[in-house]
Amino acid sequence: MGKILRINLTDKKVSESSLPEEYVKKFVGGRGLAAKILYDIMKPGIDPLSPENKMVWGVGPLTGLPVQAASSGWVVTTKSPLTNTYFRSRCVSNLGIMLKRAGYDFMIIEGKAEKPTYVYIENGEVEFGDASSLWGTTTDLAQYILKEHILRNPKVETAVIGPAGERLVRYATVQCSTRQLGRGGMGAIMGAKNLKAVAVYGDKPIPIANEELLKELVREQIKQLAAAHGTKRMQRYGTAAIHALINQIGDYPYKNFRETYYPNHEKLNGEGKVRRTIRNAGCPTCMIMCWKFTYVKEGPYAGAWIDGPEYETFWSFGGLLDNPNLDSVIYGNVLADKFGIDTISAGVCIAFAMEAFERGILTTKDTDGMELKWGDEKVIIELIRKISLREGIGDLLAEGVKIASEKLGRGSEEFAMHIKGLELPAYDPRPVKAHGLGMVTSNIGGSHAIGYGTQEVFGLPTRVDRFSLEGKGALTVYNQNRLAWGECCIWCTFPTRSEWHKPDVLTKIVDAATGIDFGGIEGALKIGERIWNLEKAFNVREGFDRRHDTLPARFLKEPIPSGPSAGQIFELEPLLNQYYEARGWDVATGLPTRAKLEELDLKDVADELEKLGKLPY
Amino acid sequence: MGKILRINLTDKKVSESSLPEEYVKKFVGGRGLAAKILYDIMKPGIDPLSPENKMVWGVGPLTGLPVQAASSGWVVTTKSPLTNTYFRSRCVSNLGIMLKRAGYDFMIIEGKAEKPTYVYIENGEVEFGDASSLWGTTTDLAQYILKEHILRNPKVETAVIGPAGERLVRYATVQCSTRQLGRGGMGAIMGAKNLKAVAVYGDKPIPIANEELLKELVREQIKQLAAAHGTKRMQRYGTAAIHALINQIGDYPYKNFRETYYPNHEKLNGEGKVRRTIRNAGCPTCMIMCWKFTYVKEGPYAGAWIDGPEYETFWSFGGLLDNPNLDSVIYGNVLADKFGIDTISAGVCIAFAMEAFERGILTTKDTDGMELKWGDEKVIIELIRKISLREGIGDLLAEGVKIASEKLGRGSEEFAMHIKGLELPAYDPRPVKAHGLGMVTSNIGGSHAIGYGTQEVFGLPTRVDRFSLEGKGALTVYNQNRLAWGECCIWCTFPTRSEWHKPDVLTKIVDAATGIDFGGIEGALKIGERIWNLEKAFNVREGFDRRHDTLPARFLKEPIPSGPSAGQIFELEPLLNQYYEARGWDVATGLPTRAKLEELDLKDVADELEKLGKLPY
Repeated sequence: MGKILRINLTDKKVSESSLPEEYVKKFVGGRGLAAKILYDIMKPGIDPLSPENKMVWGVGPLTGLPVQAASSGWVVTTKSPLTNTYFRSRCVSNLGIMLKRAGYDFMIIEGKAEKPTYVYIENGEVEFGDASSLWGTTTDLAQYILKEHILRNPKVETAVIGPAGERLVRYATVQCSTRQLGRGGMGAIMGAKNLKAVAVYGDKPIPIANEELLKELVREQIKQLAAAHGTKRMQRYGTAAIHALINQIGDYPYKNFRETYYPNHEKLNGEGKVRRTIRNAGCPTCMIMCWKFTYVKEGPYAGAWIDGPEYETFWSFGGLLDNPNLDSVIYGNVLADKFGIDTISAGVCIAFAMEAFERGILTTKDTDGMELKWGDEKVIIELIRKISLREGIGDLLAEGVKIASEKLGRGSEEFAMHIKGLELPAYDPRPVKAHGLGMVTSNIGGSHAIGYGTQEVFGLPTRVDRFSLEGKGALTVYNQNRLAWGECCIWCTFPTRSEWHKPDVLTKIVDAATGIDFGGIEGALKIGERIWNLEKAFNVREGFDRRHDTLPARFLKEPIPSGPSAGQIFELEPLLNQYYEARGWDVATGLPTRAKLEELDLKDVADELEKLGKLPY
Repeated sequence: MGKILRINLTDKKVSESSLPEEYVKKFVGGRGLAAKILYDIMKPGIDPLSPENKMVWGVGPLTGLPVQAASSGWVVTTKSPLTNTYFRSRCVSNLGIMLKRAGYDFMIIEGKAEKPTYVYIENGEVEFGDASSLWGTTTDLAQYILKEHILRNPKVETAVIGPAGERLVRYATVQCSTRQLGRGGMGAIMGAKNLKAVAVYGDKPIPIANEELLKELVREQIKQLAAAHGTKRMQRYGTAAIHALINQIGDYPYKNFRETYYPNHEKLNGEGKVRRTIRNAGCPTCMIMCWKFTYVKEGPYAGAWIDGPEYETFWSFGGLLDNPNLDSVIYGNVLADKFGIDTISAGVCIAFAMEAFERGILTTKDTDGMELKWGDEKVIIELIRKISLREGIGDLLAEGVKIASEKLGRGSEEFAMHIKGLELPAYDPRPVKAHGLGMVTSNIGGSHAIGYGTQEVFGLPTRVDRFSLEGKGALTVYNQNRLAWGECCIWCTFPTRSEWHKPDVLTKIVDAATGIDFGGIEGALKIGERIWNLEKAFNVREGFDRRHDTLPARFLKEPIPSGPSAGQIFELEPLLNQYYEARGWDVATGLPTRAKLEELDLKDVADELEKLGKLPY
């Protein structure tokens, strides 16, 4: 493993340190080590948009290696301005590879620059640049100018914020080439730090502990992937492949999660999209090529193009809002990427506003005269712009549905669709109990990606009855631990969570790459559990407990009115009880115990929580 | 000098030849040599959109050298689908440098590919690639995918057409990075050849004959440029610097050239633009940095950004159409660049349509219900889209005003503002006699760039009374010859035509770079004259003569109604007489004579024209 680079924007101090080997053995890399580094350096209780917040950028042990489904993943851990919890955002772009080639596995960014700044890292040298002229620019322009005209090297990899990040939109993104640090407001944190951009260039070689063995294992990995049905679907459609399926099983949130089946969905589905796709692309070395460059050929949105839309955006600017116009979804996605806002959160905020308007809680007085009607594509696009620029009603919606509903009041909290402040993604928790429980108990709030219930949604690797409560606590714990381990490595989420290839080939690859025996699948799950507990402890330290593991009243009170999942509600309390039990935590408070923490070699964490009065026993 | 690369798209044959040294001595490079090569290989009478048309792409002797105001210019010569004349289009982008580094000074493209194709040239190797997946894409997307995901080298330089070029819009452009082969329909020619893109990468060194002397001369050049007022203006505003000036002298075509003063122009002027400019950029090695990256920060067009707008586009989407909304001009420019249409021709076509609508020649029946009202920014943007996609009324306007007015009839030819089919730029010929005469007699039709009357417009290098007819024939000849030589070298047009540095430093630099003595300023003007006569001969061979050296009836019949140039008309016949005389051509027919051609070492041309019955004596 390489080094940790620490950059303080306030005093422009730069330092380096080595990764302790015991940390690597316990947390591997990626999300795990980034969570550990963050846990160690962060004080609880700080404002995520203050200079005291810190971001830990990190790569995994496979970053930049000739491995399938892993080579370009990287993560940022921090405290989110949407949730006030621990957060991890992940991205696939060559920035991770560049960071590693520049000699770093992790980079801590802290403090606040006096004026708009960019940070450029080239092979161990750090430069602070004046970004005043870039302030106000969209992400595409900022990246272009930075690469071509400021740094004059198009091979530099960049991560930039747009106008939304500058304006502290709480779900602002960081744009990295055509991909994003999408969720949790990473862009707002950079904006609050006056950090317009990070740019990295490195050309050092990346060492491999056991190159021959790695090659052999990757050959096996390729064989397995090539045989998987999921690989083919993903190659053809990208994540949009699941659009029809999620609707068919009645798990597709429609009209702000009132229904779970979108009658008009075929206009938006993946096969419609593939006809507009001009190019498959993906991480370097990966055979799957799940990125779909899509464009609008004719009509009022002609000329719009995007690396996407992903399934979530199809939904958040499409079905969620009763908008079947795919062209407008693409155009909305273009704007969101240019301005730098998370399409999931933005869509859910728009859905919230539309429901509030329907109920008379918002009126044309609040909206500069705009009628917020379901399915009105022009209104959707205008709201994306207004949110990004915090213009008019957009200023309220830029806070996210949690704060917006608290400000708005009048019962709007009941249909503010978030968990711990993070807007919910394109899955209704009611018909998928483990998948839903994964979101409820997620340490980063309403994310589907952190404990995905593939067994319920796809029947992978084995089908589990999605309506049943039986064993769902343990299943969720397993999924969460497995994905936590996966994001340390950093494996791509799609093939690994659905087991398009066997887990043991994955653990062996990590061993071959690092020269460390992490203990096979059992070791992997233990590492995942350790990470999960550490992340949980971060939140406990911030004051989170069982009371916060909840979800919008709609899911608890309103049975799904119709469709394939009619009648389902989310059985919160019994599922939570199951979950804490399976975690080995205190069921009453939902807090980790000393026994569990010590079992996971986290005695220091237990000691700290005890001191804070947050250890149940 | 390097080699000529010849690429036949029909049979995919590639060949190379050397440049004869006598050609270099006679035509230097750039436009001159490209004109000579084209003249030699083209048969008269062919359809510019047929496989028989050929494009000659070429660089100059200074391309890629550490010289001011010259390093990245390159040209294409061909027969234009707008004018049916000889055409030269010039561009500044690193593609020229790459071509030279790849070992070529010129590249001939001919024939027609069976299906959408791209050509990739890397250091002497030529590859034909399938561009089917790129067909239909906008220029930004096509360039991105080609560089990042097909060729996987962001340092490759590209030249691509957009949907407009594919649809044979007669003024389609070729987009090269953020710059264009703008005028004359180069994009339509590529579209007709099924050639979506040309991509070039080279890393060979570029030789310099006398490096020490060159360095010394460039130091002198820098000193002169730094002292020039024009340099400072161009550094600050780019070409928009002249916006206010052209209006002040009453030469700014307003409402389709009915007036020459735009009362609302201050909203659009260069100083307004500079406030939105985020970055100056320019050719590598050049100190002027005249490119202005401009963006829209707020309002309905927020997020739009452009390398521009140049003065001409400010005017063509702005003042010409009575549209003072700068944001919409920027957005229109974005669309034009994405779809790939010339902003000058597009604006003049829109002005034509608006005047036709005002006169009742076009009605809402022809326009899908759209009211073509002056100054309606939404209509302007919608027409840019419709023209690019040949949708509805856009299909007619995509033909250019000459053909469109011929199809439409009903007197519309009188306000179809073109010369020889090329839409007129942002100068009214009436108040600037030499400048206007330069456009009338231009071998490429209505271009301001080919015989620019700086003496009348800016008083540079010395002021000449712009209303007077005296000596204007000779002045035009001088300007045309001087610019023809400049475009062989290829000097940047701005500093050279206005003499921000002295001509003799320029001739000495060319000598130092090439090791050839071109005979100083006298030699330069002789070369320019030779080129002009050769280009003229190309057109004579195509059937052009004095009758075609004319301009729209408006300029001949309607005195300018008001403003600083009130009362002026264009005195065509006396000016033409002066001009042919100064050229040493036959005044009656406007054709070159044997004496003149032989004086210019163009005996073979004289022989050919005589055989065709097109030599007066």
